[in-house]
Amino acid sequence: MTGITFRSDMGVDLLDHMGDDDSIVRAARVSSGSTGSEQANKGLLNMLARDRHGSPFEAVTMQFKIDVPIFVAREWFRHRMSSFNEVSGRYKVLEPVFYVPDMQRPLRQIGKPGAYSFEPGDYQQQYIARACGMRAAKTSWEEYQFQLDRGIAREVARNVLPLSLYTSFIWTVNLRSALNFLSLRWAHPDSTVPTFPLYEIEQAAMKVEEVITNLVAPEAMKAFNVNGRVAP
Amino acid sequence: MTGITFRSDMGVDLLDHMGDDDSIVRAARVSSGSTGSEQANKGLLNMLARDRHGSPFEAVTMQFKIDVPIFVAREWFRHRMSSFNEVSGRYKVLEPVFYVPDMQRPLRQIGKPGAYSFEPGDYQQQYIARACGMRAAKTSWEEYQFQLDRGIAREVARNVLPLSLYTSFIWTVNLRSALNFLSLRWAHPDSTVPTFPLYEIEQAAMKVEEVITNLVAPEAMKAFNVNGRVAP
Amino acid sequence: MTGITFRSDMGVDLLDHMGDDDSIVRAARVSSGSTGSEQANKGLLNMLARDRHGSPFEAVTMQFKIDVPIFVAREWFRHRMSSFNEVSGRYKVLEPVFYVPDMQRPLRQIGKPGAYSFEPGDYQQQYIARACGMRAAKTSWEEYQFQLDRGIAREVARNVLPLSLYTSFIWTVNLRSALNFLSLRWAHPDSTVPTFPLYEIEQAAMKVEEVITNLVAPEAMKAFNVNGRVAP
Amino acid sequence: MTGITFRSDMGVDLLDHMGDDDSIVRAARVSSGSTGSEQANKGLLNMLARDRHGSPFEAVTMQFKIDVPIFVAREWFRHRMSSFNEVSGRYKVLEPVFYVPDMQRPLRQIGKPGAYSFEPGDYQQQYIARACGMRAAKTSWEEYQFQLDRGIAREVARNVLPLSLYTSFIWTVNLRSALNFLSLRWAHPDSTVPTFPLYEIEQAAMKVEEVITNLVAPEAMKAFNVNGRVAP
Repeated sequence: MTGITFRSDMGVDLLDHMGDDDSIVRAARVSSGSTGSEQANKGLLNMLARDRHGSPFEAVTMQFKIDVPIFVAREWFRHRMSSFNEVSGRYKVLEPVFYVPDMQRPLRQIGKPGAYSFEPGDYQQQYIARACGMRAAKTSWEEYQFQLDRGIAREVARNVLPLSLYTSFIWTVNLRSALNFLSLRWAHPDSTVPTFPLYEIEQAAMKVEEVITNLVAPEAMKAFNVNGRVAP
Repeated sequence: MTGITFRSDMGVDLLDHMGDDDSIVRAARVSSGSTGSEQANKGLLNMLARDRHGSPFEAVTMQFKIDVPIFVAREWFRHRMSSFNEVSGRYKVLEPVFYVPDMQRPLRQIGKPGAYSFEPGDYQQQYIARACGMRAAKTSWEEYQFQLDRGIAREVARNVLPLSLYTSFIWTVNLRSALNFLSLRWAHPDSTVPTFPLYEIEQAAMKVEEVITNLVAPEAMKAFNVNGRVAP
Repeated sequence: MTGITFRSDMGVDLLDHMGDDDSIVRAARVSSGSTGSEQANKGLLNMLARDRHGSPFEAVTMQFKIDVPIFVAREWFRHRMSSFNEVSGRYKVLEPVFYVPDMQRPLRQIGKPGAYSFEPGDYQQQYIARACGMRAAKTSWEEYQFQLDRGIAREVARNVLPLSLYTSFIWTVNLRSALNFLSLRWAHPDSTVPTFPLYEIEQAAMKVEEVITNLVAPEAMKAFNVNGRVAP
Repeated sequence: MTGITFRSDMGVDLLDHMGDDDSIVRAARVSSGSTGSEQANKGLLNMLARDRHGSPFEAVTMQFKIDVPIFVAREWFRHRMSSFNEVSGRYKVLEPVFYVPDMQRPLRQIGKPGAYSFEPGDYQQQYIARACGMRAAKTSWEEYQFQLDRGIAREVARNVLPLSLYTSFIWTVNLRSALNFLSLRWAHPDSTVPTFPLYEIEQAAMKVEEVITNLVAPEAMKAFNVNGRVAP
């Protein structure tokens, strides 16, 4: 089987954005008609995050290109306060790019529902997880190609492909909804609300947060973090 | 491989609902404070559907249990104006129920993007589509079970499973959003807006419409249909 | 001026609802496929509220008839995750029902933005607030009637009416969104998140909560309250 | 009474935006992975508008400053797929700016519900509408000021103010939702769906459309208009 690519990382690229920390301040100050110094603005952002005044954070919008396995995309699309445009297996022949867990991915789930912890797999489990993932990818890709070669429609043939297949989508989201995503999808030590995200979406969430912090709204992210990472 | 079930149908069951045709009329009549005869109420429903006064249709809510393959659920979850609670492959061991196309499922896609038509497969294509689907299901199920047996976490092992795996979810939706679903997911001859739904979700949409027509809001559905099936 | 009614209370009536505590449990248990005893179900509701698993609370929907002044309705309509059908001053001649503050309504705002407190007015302030409200109502109602009598359209004439005019609407909302409303609109002593609701909408929120607790989902409301009244 | 301003126009200013026609094309082409010439892109925009493929239009977001009377803002805030930050009469003393109808504003409503038409007022009606509006504004503003002077809280005093009072808000909205706004709030001759917007919000909608056409997405607006102005 030629041409199959395996990867373990999550792709997060910022395509565009509207607004920054100042946009949040401007939206918030509309209500009182006030203005303030830079220091006062930081204090205002902190107050908005602390007291959960969420609507001013909707004044910033962002657009990302996301490349993740389907099992991650399935969780991502549950965030309804955002927009998605995704590659369609009905309209194009898909690319053979599949996820397999890397060495960092914990493989063993310990404990009971509501109180799980995850621990690294032993050497054999690491081998098995990768080998099974690769085997399933190769076999299913052959079944997919075989059907396409016999003239069967893409939208039928693709049903044999596994959840580890990578997909791509454009995600348009405002900062308030993005903060909700981050509070749920990253079990950050500073969080005051418990969350148990899937490892792979947490890896993606870390990248989303890094991008927003560096390129979009650093002071807002600081306010989010010092106030327990509760989505406002 | 024991225990695998193959099916081709879509499961749609009404669990509960709030309101009916009269609820729509009541919501609409709030604006004018008027009342009317049964005949006037039918005329009102017709006017609401014709002129796209959508909000009164939000006065009816429904709850369904849906059983469909993941590739259908993926489309379903794009309907953001509704609520979903789905089986989780993180919290339970999944059931080996897989979709394979039946004899009615058109297998050949003819034409160019934006102008596709679908036609039945020939005998060989029908055989191949089913055989590939069954083989992929069995192989991937073995890989899933093998990993679980070696103590690998459910949420890792499930990634080898194909999009043809059945999933279950509870769908809570108001009638306005449901009409939008029906207008997009059923290429009905009475539709005035073109749509090109996936065959399998169209089968499910037909069942959703049958349930709403018979058990929830028959006059509203009549008004929807005689006015070109445009979601109000 | 004949026929004017003054009132100070907020009208909240449950018209219909779908589901109850058990519906939340059923929606939550879909993910794990589990069942449980009545005691386990209460524990589950508590866990859902504590850890902010919000989506199962969307499985319950409610419909209310709300009668409040326009200045209260203006805040209410900011809750976008719900449906509204309101009396229209374009389609009907409005009723002369106006709000004036009663003796319980605090009239003096003490302190700075972000740290306000409210205290009762003195006797003179109480008199003035009521007298001004009644005078404004009567004067504007005369201007409204005068314009209608001269053949001026309702939608133009109504612009002279004050924010104290009562309006009516049907509010269709799921329990998750209703909990968000309650967490923001009632500064309850058990709340862990600060909020500074308008007195009048807080009076209405108390009635909404009483209705939900008594008639819809008592155990869910208990779980909401013992977990700091944070909307899940 | 000094300092009162009367105006009849609607204020619409673009503060910021993300994306343009190309962003819509990019979002749409993700599904098929295709690229195209400039001519092909125009054809694609036309197809998206014609066949109601709405989600790519969500890839463009805009932010406006809106200055309109409260009776217009009340309709505007019904558009739930957008974000609002509004001047608060709780946090600041309001400005005495009031709406009165100008000579173009039709004053007489002819016909029955569902089949209204509006015609200009005669000279006397024009005089009355303006005089009543101005009188109500002045009287209520005096009542507002009187209460504030006696130490009554802003949030109580403002209840005497009429619906003609101007308010300001920041509106953050994506292009899809904006097209829905335009299709409902402008009874444009090219519309294929009937709508009966309030005159004043239609004036504002015309300005919103002019801004989007000139500054944001001209080809998308062309596609919207040649396809019957149906929101995709």
